[in-house]
Amino acid sequence: MTDCPFCGSVADDSEFAGDESFRVLYNIAPIVPGHSLVIPRRHIQRVSDLREDEFCSYWSFAQKVTRFLLSTFETDAYDWTIQEQEAAGQTVPHLHLHVIPRVPGDFEEPGDWYPKLRSGRIVKHAHEVLDSNDRIRLFDDESRAIASELASKWTEWLKAD
Amino acid sequence: MTDCPFCGSVADDSEFAGDESFRVLYNIAPIVPGHSLVIPRRHIQRVSDLREDEFCSYWSFAQKVTRFLLSTFETDAYDWTIQEQEAAGQTVPHLHLHVIPRVPGDFEEPGDWYPKLRSGRIVKHAHEVLDSNDRIRLFDDESRAIASELASKWTEWLKAD
Repeated sequence: MTDCPFCGSVADDSEFAGDESFRVLYNIAPIVPGHSLVIPRRHIQRVSDLREDEFCSYWSFAQKVTRFLLSTFETDAYDWTIQEQEAAGQTVPHLHLHVIPRVPGDFEEPGDWYPKLRSGRIVKHAHEVLDSNDRIRLFDDESRAIASELASKWTEWLKAD
Repeated sequence: MTDCPFCGSVADDSEFAGDESFRVLYNIAPIVPGHSLVIPRRHIQRVSDLREDEFCSYWSFAQKVTRFLLSTFETDAYDWTIQEQEAAGQTVPHLHLHVIPRVPGDFEEPGDWYPKLRSGRIVKHAHEVLDSNDRIRLFDDESRAIASELASKWTEWLKAD
């Protein structure tokens, strides 16, 4: 599915970890440092589209990635979110679990991780939504540099884990 | 752990489904109809506290509950969220997955499921956070009535599933 952003070259540039079935993308417009997406390599939209042999390993892989992100971003707090279907806020119809490392004081109130999102453009609600094309995006070279650094750390972490 | 609200009598009153390891509570202050919490019976705080034999079944059970809620609330859209640790917005230190059925138009924008939360009291940010004691709570008898109705539907649904 070539028109899916998670199946195209932008995703390749922001991938920093993966196994045979799943991959991790650094968000192109992270709401906080470390904001990543765990996606299946196959283009599927829903949790229920995971095959029986993929279902458990998706969550196990996500947990492993989360441990890595918490270690790398030096915290033990995080949010996990899946938005499924357009009515629920899903803008890219390719299953993705948001993994968002949190640190004390990153937002004024800990529950503010959505409302405090800020946009560089004047777009109604853009600063308040998780899946938004209107938040400030990283430049392509920033994105590649972060993904590359995280990929190195991931490899080191796997060896040490 | 008697001071945990998810281990006490309020939780018992709002439980509508469960198995030997997990239970489902109807949220005492739902942000939309159907807003429920999937929790382990054991008092644990983190995803990583799930035992190996519980890990997969937690997600499988959550998926089953979600299918039931989508069927009951007649939609195919939902949000899943876990907030882990206080810095991430977790106010009750007992692992809980929010399952939030969504329907087109329930909020002005599909991504608005957090910021559009409304509170009956003037508490800064209370309307914007998912885990809040300051949203409008159901009366105890409302909560029990909803849980009772959902429990009947759950039993029927399990037979038909």
